[in-house]
Amino acid sequence: MNQNPPTRIAILGATGYVGGQLAALLATHPHVRISAATSVRYAGQRLNDVYPALGDAASIELTELDPAHVADEADVVMSALPHGQSAAVLDNLAQRGLPVLDLSADYRFPDPGVYQAAYGQEHPCPDLARTAVYGLPEFDRKRIRGAALVGVPGCYPTATLLALVPLLKGGFADPDAGVVVDAKSGISGAGREAKTANLFCEAAGAVRAYNVGAHRHQPEMAFHAAVFGGRPVSIFFTPQVVPMSRGILASVYVTPAPKKKTSLEQVHAHFTGTYEGSPFARVLPLGSFPDTRQVAGTNRFAIGLAGDPERGPLVALCAIDNLIKGAAGQAVQCLNLMLGHPEETGLPLIGSVA
Amino acid sequence: MNQNPPTRIAILGATGYVGGQLAALLATHPHVRISAATSVRYAGQRLNDVYPALGDAASIELTELDPAHVADEADVVMSALPHGQSAAVLDNLAQRGLPVLDLSADYRFPDPGVYQAAYGQEHPCPDLARTAVYGLPEFDRKRIRGAALVGVPGCYPTATLLALVPLLKGGFADPDAGVVVDAKSGISGAGREAKTANLFCEAAGAVRAYNVGAHRHQPEMAFHAAVFGGRPVSIFFTPQVVPMSRGILASVYVTPAPKKKTSLEQVHAHFTGTYEGSPFARVLPLGSFPDTRQVAGTNRFAIGLAGDPERGPLVALCAIDNLIKGAAGQAVQCLNLMLGHPEETGLPLIGSVA
Amino acid sequence: MNQNPPTRIAILGATGYVGGQLAALLATHPHVRISAATSVRYAGQRLNDVYPALGDAASIELTELDPAHVADEADVVMSALPHGQSAAVLDNLAQRGLPVLDLSADYRFPDPGVYQAAYGQEHPCPDLARTAVYGLPEFDRKRIRGAALVGVPGCYPTATLLALVPLLKGGFADPDAGVVVDAKSGISGAGREAKTANLFCEAAGAVRAYNVGAHRHQPEMAFHAAVFGGRPVSIFFTPQVVPMSRGILASVYVTPAPKKKTSLEQVHAHFTGTYEGSPFARVLPLGSFPDTRQVAGTNRFAIGLAGDPERGPLVALCAIDNLIKGAAGQAVQCLNLMLGHPEETGLPLIGSVA
Amino acid sequence: MNQNPPTRIAILGATGYVGGQLAALLATHPHVRISAATSVRYAGQRLNDVYPALGDAASIELTELDPAHVADEADVVMSALPHGQSAAVLDNLAQRGLPVLDLSADYRFPDPGVYQAAYGQEHPCPDLARTAVYGLPEFDRKRIRGAALVGVPGCYPTATLLALVPLLKGGFADPDAGVVVDAKSGISGAGREAKTANLFCEAAGAVRAYNVGAHRHQPEMAFHAAVFGGRPVSIFFTPQVVPMSRGILASVYVTPAPKKKTSLEQVHAHFTGTYEGSPFARVLPLGSFPDTRQVAGTNRFAIGLAGDPERGPLVALCAIDNLIKGAAGQAVQCLNLMLGHPEETGLPLIGSVA
Repeated sequence: MNQNPPTRIAILGATGYVGGQLAALLATHPHVRISAATSVRYAGQRLNDVYPALGDAASIELTELDPAHVADEADVVMSALPHGQSAAVLDNLAQRGLPVLDLSADYRFPDPGVYQAAYGQEHPCPDLARTAVYGLPEFDRKRIRGAALVGVPGCYPTATLLALVPLLKGGFADPDAGVVVDAKSGISGAGREAKTANLFCEAAGAVRAYNVGAHRHQPEMAFHAAVFGGRPVSIFFTPQVVPMSRGILASVYVTPAPKKKTSLEQVHAHFTGTYEGSPFARVLPLGSFPDTRQVAGTNRFAIGLAGDPERGPLVALCAIDNLIKGAAGQAVQCLNLMLGHPEETGLPLIGSVA
Repeated sequence: MNQNPPTRIAILGATGYVGGQLAALLATHPHVRISAATSVRYAGQRLNDVYPALGDAASIELTELDPAHVADEADVVMSALPHGQSAAVLDNLAQRGLPVLDLSADYRFPDPGVYQAAYGQEHPCPDLARTAVYGLPEFDRKRIRGAALVGVPGCYPTATLLALVPLLKGGFADPDAGVVVDAKSGISGAGREAKTANLFCEAAGAVRAYNVGAHRHQPEMAFHAAVFGGRPVSIFFTPQVVPMSRGILASVYVTPAPKKKTSLEQVHAHFTGTYEGSPFARVLPLGSFPDTRQVAGTNRFAIGLAGDPERGPLVALCAIDNLIKGAAGQAVQCLNLMLGHPEETGLPLIGSVA
Repeated sequence: MNQNPPTRIAILGATGYVGGQLAALLATHPHVRISAATSVRYAGQRLNDVYPALGDAASIELTELDPAHVADEADVVMSALPHGQSAAVLDNLAQRGLPVLDLSADYRFPDPGVYQAAYGQEHPCPDLARTAVYGLPEFDRKRIRGAALVGVPGCYPTATLLALVPLLKGGFADPDAGVVVDAKSGISGAGREAKTANLFCEAAGAVRAYNVGAHRHQPEMAFHAAVFGGRPVSIFFTPQVVPMSRGILASVYVTPAPKKKTSLEQVHAHFTGTYEGSPFARVLPLGSFPDTRQVAGTNRFAIGLAGDPERGPLVALCAIDNLIKGAAGQAVQCLNLMLGHPEETGLPLIGSVA
Repeated sequence: MNQNPPTRIAILGATGYVGGQLAALLATHPHVRISAATSVRYAGQRLNDVYPALGDAASIELTELDPAHVADEADVVMSALPHGQSAAVLDNLAQRGLPVLDLSADYRFPDPGVYQAAYGQEHPCPDLARTAVYGLPEFDRKRIRGAALVGVPGCYPTATLLALVPLLKGGFADPDAGVVVDAKSGISGAGREAKTANLFCEAAGAVRAYNVGAHRHQPEMAFHAAVFGGRPVSIFFTPQVVPMSRGILASVYVTPAPKKKTSLEQVHAHFTGTYEGSPFARVLPLGSFPDTRQVAGTNRFAIGLAGDPERGPLVALCAIDNLIKGAAGQAVQCLNLMLGHPEETGLPLIGSVA
């Protein structure tokens, strides 16, 4: 029985899909409560006016973003503001001593130069950026536990790195060959802004490739694959949207390391070992392959393996829920680590049967 | 803090959509545990082999149905067997002293003759049928609390009765005029059996009317509308499937009671009063209308009102999740009442933002 | 073999869903060619830049709307401009002597007062409005053939009137009782404007009622039901959107005429007789009910009947493709009549198997 | 004006999705008529009883398959029978002198040994198989024109080869490196058989990988890539289904030829040149990428290019409608060539705006 008062959480940008998902998760978390929720567009309304699906259990009143007020009302800040807008606000709040988790792209690179290259603008708060910890718990629980600022990974990088890093660390991938990532995402990845391309009648019936070889998540993948994998990696990334609301399935193709004697069973054993103790991981038996429904609505991820690890190619496929493991759930997983709770606290493990 | 051991629940027929949904709910319920789960088709496999979405949190091994074994292993039995199959099995288990909840149609009529008229077969266990309590908690918490056998309502009757009964009890409907119910259901209502009509390519893009005026849920609606409303009711029912997995929206049209002086505001106030204290109810403000997404994934229901309560027609629209409030969630709500827990225990209140 | 030069058609407002559908139909029509297509938003682009699905077969360059230019370039004008914008432009073009078909709501009422009551604004061109012919060919081929201005019916009124008018004319409906119309539409009915409510993630999984009892198509239905049915009719209308791109299924409920001795077979025979010779009609056998997939992609409509024609209620269900029979296809059907072609010329009769 | 009597076509296996699509296309073809249509399961019914969407325009009565009868009634035979069943029947009909087009996999390999390796069974008619022409018109119009037996390509191989062959023939791909094909298909590719995995509630919301590295279309791709490309090719194939009815998007990744000096513009020019004069081809401008909606409902295909043609990888993405260009439409395209018609005769070029 928890006798401490709940940790008070402020959600910045609560009315996008990521912010709304975050509210849904925090509203049922046993050790926190949402103490503030901001929205430029809907300030003055209640969160469940914007998302009736949240019901009265998430009926907090939305306010304009006032850092001083947030600092008074919250113990921890979680930001789902758009990238570019999040950085300075969080700098302000971090200086007030608040632990912060940023779900935007603003604090995903400890090197401001990489940020600038990827996002085409100088980082507004380079000093703070250098202190950020990348919030992918499966590879870095220790630093997240001690972090004051966590940059929560993007959705595509999450799915990609969960499949790719074990291939790199296990020595299964040729260091001189590039990696191909072919990923399919549900439409919620594009956010809740009203755009013609995301209308039901435009998105239904369409698998659509976009920004092929030029998506801003590619540098994020490459940077952290290098960090976690221990060496530079070249990645080619093909993002695609498919007609469903949530989920990502990423196919990660590598060329095997030359002259390595191994088998798919050994690759599988390496993945199983890597994710031992990770409550959200499922490495599927050989011959089984993931789909997004088996993880939708949960913070779990599922990985399948195929190919020829000696002659190549070798492929690891990873399925996640883009709004949960790919965003809000992963943020709560990081929050749990920062607060000293078991990492699965308050996170959904059971999805939908239909 | 609950110090009692969890109540052991046996799920009969755990691999249809209703059974699977029931397992998903019970697996996170704080005071119960699934102690047995049966399946003819998948016996020997684990439940999460059939439904990977359930994950390891619902990984119980499926067994053949052996009543003696069930009686040993369970404190309460919940059956999602097909109608016609459920009756005799539950009779056996009830005679062994087990409280039972039946999600099939077999125990929804205390009058076996009405069952026979609706389902075209003699009731196999008429004596037990006469003892069954109809499990619609919003109208009959007291009898459910003391019940040994609960017949959990069908999905269409649930949505219909939640909209219709207050109209009847409030005296807003002409006793001599019939009621029209025009309802739209997600495809999961048709069950998980492999049928051509329910293939993705057949169901996508189709609103499809079926069994108009001849659906077997019509007698159930009429019978219990009469019980709860206090007088006989004639109902015409048009069921339709729409291309989504879950949810029902029912439009219930009545002719106003003659010469009654009233207003839509008064009808609204009557609904609000009826559902005061019901944790799953939401009577929408006048001018707002329900949709299925705002209740999907939850045990909640939402009601909207329109029309002219003096000249007519008057319409009440009710949205539910057919697998939760329309089946498994309502069963758990009844279970909570039977076990003395608050009725919302373990039931989801928050749906999905995308 | 047609030896005349093709009739030149100008499409005003070619880039909404109705305008785009009209272009798709006219591009394969054997006796016409699209000679001009206007768009405020996309002027200067080609139509198949906006709708890649149209391909090079509909690659006309979009222009600003210049009435003088249109009058030079076209023999007939078809307008899919928004209501309120269409009226004055068409008045200008009609004065230049061009036959016009208006797919907006602006010329659907020969009585400008009814327009004002329904649309909340004075009709800008009442004199022209009084000359308009309502373009529902199944009930009024003769006047359409001779019309200079056709107001093409709305999507919901089309589905409703095709089901309701035979009930009225056949004397099957009580003249003193109201009619209930409960209709379900695909999302394309809401147009192509970028609105949050029509995003994929908002519309998927949702049956959503809106404007219940207050939709602007209700006065249109009531007005023309009275015209074609021969007496005033009171209609209550519940519109709903369902998660599919195109299609409407309307349930039309009537109270039977008192003391009329009849049978469902007789009602069916009356419908069959009414639509004899109508190339797009299908009156389904008793016991069969329509779905939207069986008419999607075509100009056909399907009608099913149920209920008790003596004691009531009696229901006629009608399925159409909202963009074709409910808009662009019906406009082409009217055009064919005006040009002296068989009414099915160039209109699709075969839908999609998957 | 065509004054010859229409060519009489027999469709074998008319009630699967491919057979039904074939009927839909042939029913509006100006120079043919469907003279026979067979079905084991639905013999005695009409084709539009099985597919109401086809309407009266495709209302031929379905019969059992009797080769003698077919030979009497038809000038050409088109088979959409399952693979393994098609071979012997077509051998019989070919011996009766009928030109045949096989949409199954039975005659896609002129080398019976390759068939046996891919399909795990000896080819029942190896002599006939050796005479078959592979029906991919864009690469082999001449042989198709003179063919007596055409093996119509599979859906995945069609999309893959249209993207891959120009890369091979243009010398853009390293002959020593393998090719990765990551393809996404609509559910109709799985056929119309009632299987749990293809139910709406199972397929909705799921991107699902299956048979990764082991799909039977892989040998077909590799065989014909070698034939058309002029050298052996190793292909790794990842098939996936996505929640839509029709369409395939294939990403084809190659490693550039070593030391080749080239640019993406040159690759693009090579594709444009390759498909010059092909009425169904669209090579998108650089920076644009295909989606399935822009080709759905048509026989067209769209190709987009990206990557680095010197350092790699280089990707070509191809979108088709799996039931039309990937099956029935391509068969009609071949039929047109065999009959001496322009290859686009009777084939849809315009898709759906919503």
